Amino acid sequence: MVGPCLISFFFFFFNLLPFSQALEASHCSIKGFTLVRNIGELPQGDYGRGGLSHITVAGSLLHGLKEVEVWLQTFAPGSRTPIHRHSCEEVFVVLKGSGTLFLASSSHKYPGKPEEHFIFSNSTFHIPVNDVHQVWNTNEHEDLQVLAIISRPPIKVFIYEDWFMPHTAAKLKFPYSWDEQCFQEPQKDEL
Amino acid sequence: MVGPCLISFFFFFFNLLPFSQALEASHCSIKGFTLVRNIGELPQGDYGRGGLSHITVAGSLLHGLKEVEVWLQTFAPGSRTPIHRHSCEEVFVVLKGSGTLFLASSSHKYPGKPEEHFIFSNSTFHIPVNDVHQVWNTNEHEDLQVLAIISRPPIKVFIYEDWFMPHTAAKLKFPYSWDEQCFQEPQKDEL
Repeated sequence: MVGPCLISFFFFFFNLLPFSQALEASHCSIKGFTLVRNIGELPQGDYGRGGLSHITVAGSLLHGLKEVEVWLQTFAPGSRTPIHRHSCEEVFVVLKGSGTLFLASSSHKYPGKPEEHFIFSNSTFHIPVNDVHQVWNTNEHEDLQVLAIISRPPIKVFIYEDWFMPHTAAKLKFPYSWDEQCFQEPQKDEL
Repeated sequence: MVGPCLISFFFFFFNLLPFSQALEASHCSIKGFTLVRNIGELPQGDYGRGGLSHITVAGSLLHGLKEVEVWLQTFAPGSRTPIHRHSCEEVFVVLKGSGTLFLASSSHKYPGKPEEHFIFSNSTFHIPVNDVHQVWNTNEHEDLQVLAIISRPPIKVFIYEDWFMPHTAAKLKFPYSWDEQCFQEPQKDEL
């Protein structure tokens, strides 16, 4: 869910600092964060996706959570997530705006033509484990803002170029929750 | 987190209907619910606590979730949760109002005098697994509204009468997420 620039950044930065030193040097330690945090003051990023604002409200790497993670994401008109899947549950609560959820199951060799669902302010929906999905702000006039709640953090996200790409060809990317300075070395089976 | 009336209701109703029949007869089946749901149209209850409005936005028994559950809770001025703990992570996002979080660890024989934290609109905080806590709308002029996100649903909640009650004396209650008509027979070790 991040662009090539972040991946380049990762390999560049990783070569400069030993892993333990990087952790100590960053703001990623779970020691010392404030228990009650003002969401408006938390760092936000676009992770290489134009029109996206992502804030990790409560995260595994930043705050030591092990079972759930909460993101606040705002999509400018026309912006969207990639087509993707992850091996965890995800619940959305739409705080502002409207848009479209595209959803396909993972039971065939490839996702295929997705179902389309209208999503709107004060609505909720959830994505079954491993179902392929995309959230798109299809409202030309208003931002779409959602709280996204995931289980099993930090998650692995697999990205599709289109809805007819085989599941086995989907590519692992860094999820939103991996702060640029809070990386971990990818495991061999993830590459 | 519910009053004695619900417990009475449970035993009364359970004696009338076999378990499987009760499940079929209720609205608790995960089949047939709408994927995108208007939160404003979801059922709400007070679970025997005056001043509380609880809505299960996404739940294990109602919607088939297995790893996370999301609640929308509104506390009228002066109202509060019981002093309680549960063996799961919990993240709060404060949507409206302000109040006080009381928090004590579970590392001694009893909670003891809790820390007090001011909570406010657009803030977030989380409760470590098994820490004893209470959320209280201490603002006399405004409702306090929060999204509460828990892991490991459906959870077991243990209630304390005061902050100096031993952990071993805390009593198991039905959690908010157990809809009155979506009960399950308690296991022997829960009674």
